[in-house]
Amino acid sequence: METVYDVMEPACPTRQIVGRIGDKWTLLVLYALAGGTLRYTELRAEVKGVSQKMLTQTLRALERDGLVDRHVHATVPPRVDYSLTELGASLGTAIATIRTWAYDHVEEVESARERYDERAA
Amino acid sequence: METVYDVMEPACPTRQIVGRIGDKWTLLVLYALAGGTLRYTELRAEVKGVSQKMLTQTLRALERDGLVDRHVHATVPPRVDYSLTELGASLGTAIATIRTWAYDHVEEVESARERYDERAA
Repeated sequence: METVYDVMEPACPTRQIVGRIGDKWTLLVLYALAGGTLRYTELRAEVKGVSQKMLTQTLRALERDGLVDRHVHATVPPRVDYSLTELGASLGTAIATIRTWAYDHVEEVESARERYDERAA
Repeated sequence: METVYDVMEPACPTRQIVGRIGDKWTLLVLYALAGGTLRYTELRAEVKGVSQKMLTQTLRALERDGLVDRHVHATVPPRVDYSLTELGASLGTAIATIRTWAYDHVEEVESARERYDERAA
């Protein structure tokens, strides 16, 4: 029997994946790692405004989903690198379209907001 | 002077847009409306699991951003239709890649989770 997936069904695993991607920090961490391997501290400097707790949670979830590799180097103190897996890189390509869209349409969104707020005032 | 946008800067409007898209309900509502105009009750039936409060909030934000049109028909009782604007339809195309990715890679993500949970056990 073939499994039928439906992103609109709360119990469907595809819905969980969309839920994971539909998370601001996930998108930003994936964008940062698309540029190459980063240490934890570098990632935190890149994704401005993220708390240590949120970054750690986001990285753990991405690692569990097979999207990010965590590599601990046997140095003193230990160095921890994060990088996209092959699967993570393929998702990176898919979500790049969102960033491109945001850069291309930011002025239109801002004008729409101004018009809406004027009507509401 | 040209405005330079940077999605990694918390104050940048492009970051706000990514934040809006990086929201599970936003993605699901945009997927539902990509199929055509829907009434509020139809939308709520389509996006399974969404509360009335979250759906109303999500629609209002999408309307403010110029992505969704709200059309009130002068009937008794009034009928309210929601549809994608041209701008919303262009975003719909950009985010369709995420859903496609989820459908294509759900088994790989689930296997990765099982391996992770076995290692952690």
